[in-house]
Amino acid sequence: MRFPPIVPGFSQLIHGGDYNPDQWMDMEVWKEDMRIAKAMGINSLSVGIFSWTALEPREGEYSFGWLDTILDMMAAQGMKAMLATPSGARPAWLSQKYPEVLRVSEDGLRNQHGGRHNHCLSSPVYREKVQKINTLLAERYKDHPALGAWHISNEYGGECFCPLCQERFRQWLQRKYDSLDALNHAWWTAFWSHTYTDWSQIEAPSRRGETSVHGQKLDWKRFTTEQFIDFYRAETEPLKRITPNVPCTTNLMGTYPGIDYFALAKALDFASWDNYPQWTGYTKDDVPLAAETAFKHDLMRGVKQRPFFLMESCPSATNWRPYARLHRPGVHILQSLQAVGHGADSVQYFQFRKSRGSSEKLHGAVVDHVGHEHTRVNEEIARLGSMLQGLSGVVGQDTPAKAALLYDWQNAWALNDAQGLNNVDKKYFDTVMDHYRALWSQGVQLDILSEDADLAGYDLVVAPMLYMVREGLGQRLRAFVEAGGTLMSTFGSGYVDENDLCYLGGFPGPLRATLGIWCEEIDVLLPGESNEILYHGQRYRLFDYAEQLHLEGAVSLAEYRKDFYAGKPALTVNALGKGRAYFLAGRLEDGFMRAFYQDLLAEAGIERFELPYGCSLALRGEGEEEYAFLLNFAAEACKVNLSGVDALSGERLEAVELEGHGVRVLKRLKRG
Amino acid sequence: MRFPPIVPGFSQLIHGGDYNPDQWMDMEVWKEDMRIAKAMGINSLSVGIFSWTALEPREGEYSFGWLDTILDMMAAQGMKAMLATPSGARPAWLSQKYPEVLRVSEDGLRNQHGGRHNHCLSSPVYREKVQKINTLLAERYKDHPALGAWHISNEYGGECFCPLCQERFRQWLQRKYDSLDALNHAWWTAFWSHTYTDWSQIEAPSRRGETSVHGQKLDWKRFTTEQFIDFYRAETEPLKRITPNVPCTTNLMGTYPGIDYFALAKALDFASWDNYPQWTGYTKDDVPLAAETAFKHDLMRGVKQRPFFLMESCPSATNWRPYARLHRPGVHILQSLQAVGHGADSVQYFQFRKSRGSSEKLHGAVVDHVGHEHTRVNEEIARLGSMLQGLSGVVGQDTPAKAALLYDWQNAWALNDAQGLNNVDKKYFDTVMDHYRALWSQGVQLDILSEDADLAGYDLVVAPMLYMVREGLGQRLRAFVEAGGTLMSTFGSGYVDENDLCYLGGFPGPLRATLGIWCEEIDVLLPGESNEILYHGQRYRLFDYAEQLHLEGAVSLAEYRKDFYAGKPALTVNALGKGRAYFLAGRLEDGFMRAFYQDLLAEAGIERFELPYGCSLALRGEGEEEYAFLLNFAAEACKVNLSGVDALSGERLEAVELEGHGVRVLKRLKRG
Amino acid sequence: MRFPPIVPGFSQLIHGGDYNPDQWMDMEVWKEDMRIAKAMGINSLSVGIFSWTALEPREGEYSFGWLDTILDMMAAQGMKAMLATPSGARPAWLSQKYPEVLRVSEDGLRNQHGGRHNHCLSSPVYREKVQKINTLLAERYKDHPALGAWHISNEYGGECFCPLCQERFRQWLQRKYDSLDALNHAWWTAFWSHTYTDWSQIEAPSRRGETSVHGQKLDWKRFTTEQFIDFYRAETEPLKRITPNVPCTTNLMGTYPGIDYFALAKALDFASWDNYPQWTGYTKDDVPLAAETAFKHDLMRGVKQRPFFLMESCPSATNWRPYARLHRPGVHILQSLQAVGHGADSVQYFQFRKSRGSSEKLHGAVVDHVGHEHTRVNEEIARLGSMLQGLSGVVGQDTPAKAALLYDWQNAWALNDAQGLNNVDKKYFDTVMDHYRALWSQGVQLDILSEDADLAGYDLVVAPMLYMVREGLGQRLRAFVEAGGTLMSTFGSGYVDENDLCYLGGFPGPLRATLGIWCEEIDVLLPGESNEILYHGQRYRLFDYAEQLHLEGAVSLAEYRKDFYAGKPALTVNALGKGRAYFLAGRLEDGFMRAFYQDLLAEAGIERFELPYGCSLALRGEGEEEYAFLLNFAAEACKVNLSGVDALSGERLEAVELEGHGVRVLKRLKRG
Repeated sequence: MRFPPIVPGFSQLIHGGDYNPDQWMDMEVWKEDMRIAKAMGINSLSVGIFSWTALEPREGEYSFGWLDTILDMMAAQGMKAMLATPSGARPAWLSQKYPEVLRVSEDGLRNQHGGRHNHCLSSPVYREKVQKINTLLAERYKDHPALGAWHISNEYGGECFCPLCQERFRQWLQRKYDSLDALNHAWWTAFWSHTYTDWSQIEAPSRRGETSVHGQKLDWKRFTTEQFIDFYRAETEPLKRITPNVPCTTNLMGTYPGIDYFALAKALDFASWDNYPQWTGYTKDDVPLAAETAFKHDLMRGVKQRPFFLMESCPSATNWRPYARLHRPGVHILQSLQAVGHGADSVQYFQFRKSRGSSEKLHGAVVDHVGHEHTRVNEEIARLGSMLQGLSGVVGQDTPAKAALLYDWQNAWALNDAQGLNNVDKKYFDTVMDHYRALWSQGVQLDILSEDADLAGYDLVVAPMLYMVREGLGQRLRAFVEAGGTLMSTFGSGYVDENDLCYLGGFPGPLRATLGIWCEEIDVLLPGESNEILYHGQRYRLFDYAEQLHLEGAVSLAEYRKDFYAGKPALTVNALGKGRAYFLAGRLEDGFMRAFYQDLLAEAGIERFELPYGCSLALRGEGEEEYAFLLNFAAEACKVNLSGVDALSGERLEAVELEGHGVRVLKRLKRG
Repeated sequence: MRFPPIVPGFSQLIHGGDYNPDQWMDMEVWKEDMRIAKAMGINSLSVGIFSWTALEPREGEYSFGWLDTILDMMAAQGMKAMLATPSGARPAWLSQKYPEVLRVSEDGLRNQHGGRHNHCLSSPVYREKVQKINTLLAERYKDHPALGAWHISNEYGGECFCPLCQERFRQWLQRKYDSLDALNHAWWTAFWSHTYTDWSQIEAPSRRGETSVHGQKLDWKRFTTEQFIDFYRAETEPLKRITPNVPCTTNLMGTYPGIDYFALAKALDFASWDNYPQWTGYTKDDVPLAAETAFKHDLMRGVKQRPFFLMESCPSATNWRPYARLHRPGVHILQSLQAVGHGADSVQYFQFRKSRGSSEKLHGAVVDHVGHEHTRVNEEIARLGSMLQGLSGVVGQDTPAKAALLYDWQNAWALNDAQGLNNVDKKYFDTVMDHYRALWSQGVQLDILSEDADLAGYDLVVAPMLYMVREGLGQRLRAFVEAGGTLMSTFGSGYVDENDLCYLGGFPGPLRATLGIWCEEIDVLLPGESNEILYHGQRYRLFDYAEQLHLEGAVSLAEYRKDFYAGKPALTVNALGKGRAYFLAGRLEDGFMRAFYQDLLAEAGIERFELPYGCSLALRGEGEEEYAFLLNFAAEACKVNLSGVDALSGERLEAVELEGHGVRVLKRLKRG
Repeated sequence: MRFPPIVPGFSQLIHGGDYNPDQWMDMEVWKEDMRIAKAMGINSLSVGIFSWTALEPREGEYSFGWLDTILDMMAAQGMKAMLATPSGARPAWLSQKYPEVLRVSEDGLRNQHGGRHNHCLSSPVYREKVQKINTLLAERYKDHPALGAWHISNEYGGECFCPLCQERFRQWLQRKYDSLDALNHAWWTAFWSHTYTDWSQIEAPSRRGETSVHGQKLDWKRFTTEQFIDFYRAETEPLKRITPNVPCTTNLMGTYPGIDYFALAKALDFASWDNYPQWTGYTKDDVPLAAETAFKHDLMRGVKQRPFFLMESCPSATNWRPYARLHRPGVHILQSLQAVGHGADSVQYFQFRKSRGSSEKLHGAVVDHVGHEHTRVNEEIARLGSMLQGLSGVVGQDTPAKAALLYDWQNAWALNDAQGLNNVDKKYFDTVMDHYRALWSQGVQLDILSEDADLAGYDLVVAPMLYMVREGLGQRLRAFVEAGGTLMSTFGSGYVDENDLCYLGGFPGPLRATLGIWCEEIDVLLPGESNEILYHGQRYRLFDYAEQLHLEGAVSLAEYRKDFYAGKPALTVNALGKGRAYFLAGRLEDGFMRAFYQDLLAEAGIERFELPYGCSLALRGEGEEEYAFLLNFAAEACKVNLSGVDALSGERLEAVELEGHGVRVLKRLKRG
């Protein structure tokens, strides 16, 4: 399946990035910027991000001239603008005149002016000012040929504890629970005498007040997500009205824990995100990181289940990482085509021209302080630009996945906030990655879904550490298995419902019948400690957790070999209807994960590939329009036994040889 | 000697724990609870802890019905209630209407509602409300057959910096010092020009103000202890008046540093405490922990010098530990009988039925979320229940100790707050445990005393790191030695008086003549560094400290073998009157401690036992009523060469074989 | 060159220290103090530090009697007082009556009374009160024979965020920038829309507001330095007026980061500082520390380019170090003569008589709590006292340095605050020490200069990590090289101007032509990672940074041997005019630094010495008045092949044998 291009009518892969001409109010600089952009194969710039003071230097006094000029210059080169709303940071005059727009911290103290996301999402005056400037932008540029998409604000994040937000929290709770009795039950407030007898008694969780009522903290996080959605709706209202055909997005941040992106994404026209992996250049460090980055791309594709934009990335050293290390040769192209392979229809940077001052002046950019493009970094950017031009056929191509992995913000919130299990690190993300990595390393295409997703069309659903099983999910997973699907489940599942209340009657609660097991208790292994299982005659180490199972219909495929539960089941499968449901009772080393999934994939009839260590395969499109991205994240060269046609050179290849950090895009991939 | 039972007329070992029926307002649940309690051999439940809102949902509106029912159901099964006062957490309506009941933090900011101990101990309205509800409870249940004891509040702790508390601090100081001159001298305020010229200038120590006047900080801690005593007196006043024969306690927390439990315990009718060791199941980790836990039991027995209650413990995973690990088989019985062996007349749990929500929903309990008792944990609880029934003869039995160890909160406060010595970790507790472990591992029964204790009746007094020597202690120790006692003292002793003012004229101040030494200066060894001494021809390593001594009558038993003080004394003994006073100048490895104490015990005529590593012996009672608890904290089986009669089976044993984590209680122990 | 003595007419080396008789208001104690001082060869005491409450117990009520007595007793023994102004800590009555004198923290909360430097530097009433008491002191003691120098306050430090200070910050900015446009450009406020449109919008940087505008933070630090200078001027005004011939100082703290001491020192009559190295007694730990301490002495000499006072040091354990370890025998004399060798005309202690209470009661002192002088420590102090008497000829002698090293507070502020490079640790100080240690270990005498210094008279200038190159420095360095000087520069140089704005057109900006290189980008090596260079056929490891150079006239002396930049230059030299400019692209191990500098020194014609590891040589004076301090920081004895005459015994030595931690002062040193 092929989606229409995100920017209507613009069927190239976008290449560009954040551009801040208002830091350089100088036509000579701007002309040079346009020249270099062209030399780099850049066809888009994101402008107006953090430009509020440049656009409105005093309340009600506007200055759009510089932006007119820039957009005109861009249009003249056929470039498309991601035009930003400036709400990510307020002018000083605004904070000064309306101090109530500033956030209040968890400590209850009002912030001073400064920083980026430092505005109260409830503030009526802030919303009014944002809508005003957004209206002016939309009206002024609604017919401008450079206008490609709206870039809403920037990296939404944080939270506010001001009285207005607290009041909205109470209102939100009232709508959700209707009665205090329902809230008191859901939050289990009888514990420690926390029962509320009036709505007005409720406050946000705070280190100065309540820190241990999990239900309250969970709802506060949901409320904060709702605040962002509500604010997004308010600030896009004039844009939707005035420029109904221009798509809107806000740049997300992968697995940023503060917002449930599945919920927020419903409001977006398309997803986009900012990706800053810290590559080391070593095989051993970068391969797990490559899998993690692939997962995040899949997740960002997953929140809308369609292609997305890579809105920011860095062609050189990311200045805020602990070690602002240079990308090794090839790495910039590698990371860029990884994004495209996993569903990005753009490669964009922060930022086009390096700032001269302030906190990101040492962040890798397209135009460095030296001011020209005769650098190692520019050589690679230009090469990438030309590759992207050759890959326009990729635009809009869907990812052909028969396997899905459940990753869920609300589950992460509940699990990570739980007191119990391994309190030092619950290992939710690690466990997710154990499973993801096993599939990614075998070239399996995966969709990442929330717990609420429709599972139709998938042959395999992997659901690691499904601590929270919300209303309906138990039934849907059961139906999925009965209809012939394969479910892969793990320890730490089926503990609580959507309110973080424990399931009574035996874990894993709503999954018990589907999995055919009862989990009596769970052992936590100490750091450095391991148990062991045998699989196909091979010993594998088991870490971190050891759930204690009773078989209730399932059969055991492997048993613990040590400790007081030696001989008890550690890996089970339950046949149910036409499908099968697996359960893995602890974290297993990579060798097992790979071996086990190889069997599982064969059984489930899902395509896999034999790839060298560190090499991954991402597919987009189908048939003649299938693109296969072969990406080598190892520092060493490798050879892949796949044949096809090089999508850029048209050369037919019987096998693919990749340099360390090398990439090749194939078409007409020959299977088995 | 045998004390009467703590609950008048109830001569069984108590088996039970915290029970929160108000989290489950459901008669079916309550009936099931009673059934399971009976099956577990449970004869007591602690109820009403954190039930304020359940009892008084709105100011002045009461709801005792549920508690009536529960107590009636308990009485019907012959169970005794630890009936709690609910002051450990306030209802939300109370915080809302009277915000002055909330604490003020060290930063000077008033807390929000939330948490547990978050009430100002000075607040008149809080005291009034607490006394009101306590009065109602006492009047309602004064004749109830289930009423066994009063459980006051819960785990007193924390501190408040509100204006009321600060004013009470000033009043307390005025009573203590009478004149500002005396206070200025005691706090040595001339240092850094801190001299107070008016009482009103004095504030609590605070990171926003004064952090370095040790005398002030010491007095603040004493004052905080006094606040708790005063609050305890206020909240027990109606109980003492209405139910004069029902004993009161509040559950302590071992070595919790915020309150001088020796002082607080004077106000209690009996001591009780909450014990949550994190057993690993490995010999190497659990043996020092077993000694530490034994020490805490002895300390909790020591604060009243009589049997106590183990008010809380966990039969399974403690959810708030870094790793919420399962107890290995046998460990729950082992830890429970360790408590009894060291003086507990109860084994109680937090909690009977696991919460469904909030922060302790994953804390090991008697009734798990599965809702029935057919679990590994319940099997062990039931087995313990039956053992406890067989050991009723233990109730009230005293511990026959001829050796005492001084452990003192005020000393710990002064020492740990000192700038000097090893500032990373003064190693007070470690040093205490060095000495305790050496004696515990040889089956020596020990009383733990404060500096203020009467030393009569002991043959040996061990006084590690007696940094603060309060008025009179020097004379008492001297008299003790002169009368034939053996004193064991160490480095870091005799530095300051009760106000943390250094002794002039030569350390160890008031102990100098008794020990026959002058300590000129003290060297601090760096981590990883050691010196060495020779003892009976064997080399032992010395760590952390190396006090530099001059002999003034004492003789040297061992000398440093390295560094610029090689050849100088490191272990001395002074003969004084009929006794002897030893001094050890640094921390020595366990091998030395054991060898040295073996000699010392022989010389002092104190009974010791030869026990395998990890095995300990606790005694209660005497003659025909002597109970010997043999406890194996090693994961491996062992054999102990002691013979006696099994107190439960009546079987005569020539030697005792213990499984890993095994326990045996003997009577009629045969001595070498 | 020989400077006149700092205390006019007093041509001995000062031996003494802080004395707080007001902690001991007892004539018997004072008489004993005077007796012991004499026995120790002490000829000076610093009095009145933190004595405000003792001098003015109530507002306007004074009590000078005790100080009269002390000064009279000192005069009677021919001792000189460092007479302190008491502003380092306020009386409680002052904080109570005028709470506005207390500081406001970065969080915006007013401090409570307490601590030392806790007064607002802007507060009019505080300044008034300080001037009043200072005036009274000056008038009362202006003709007192004991008055040697004024000791202003104590260890100036910290900062205040109160409204008055913020307003002064804005005024200071207005004076500095004149226009908001200039400020906006300098702070690059267009980044993140931080443009100020009114002066009143500007606030201090704060974690509650703005934390990432480097220009703002840099100016705040400069402003804070100006505040201290301004306060110093205000509090010395009466002293300068009433006692114009008595020199003033305030005790500095080496590399304390909060104040630009080069700027503050301009206001002082002479420099003085407090030195507390934590010697371990091991060769491997103490040698780098010895170099670091030598550097700090050179720096403290450098801020005024003349001899200074060692105002505080510790003859025994420094109580606030992590491990309050004893000095090994000889170490106290060693550290004291190191100071003298590097330019100190005094050896002074904190403190003379140990406090009995409060936070420094365990800090090593001359008179310990034992109260007499028959201790190991006193024996060494007395020996030192007599050595100092024998070295009076050293007083005022200059240090004959032909080499200078640039160390700059403003550079450190900008570099350490930068986001980029190695964010975990920029390694500025480490890099400075790499170079310093290489020179120090070869007996090279060094001056430490700020970036603003005059370079005339030097043959070698070492400028490590000159990240900030302020206006004019580029030209001065160029002129220095052209005139025949040798410049040693490193990676991380020439990035920003004085406002932390990046140089455009290619790094190292104003140094590019002088060094003959363009630095395209810089790689950051991860911890544990290294590259390698070859020098004289020997391999040396390179760490932390690898700047990527293009030769623009310079020649390469060594190349990287690994990674993608293998073969590219890592060490270059550029011939320019009569001189040469070197550039080192990464941090190199000590072996290289020593070998490389040996060549460089030979080329530059600078005297060096062959010294055993751990042994250093400090020179003062010239010709017959040249004193050579041979200092052995190794724990092992060594032999130095230098001959001369022992300055104390007059003995002629053909070679010098030094014990571990031994010292020898020679005259008439015979050169190779």
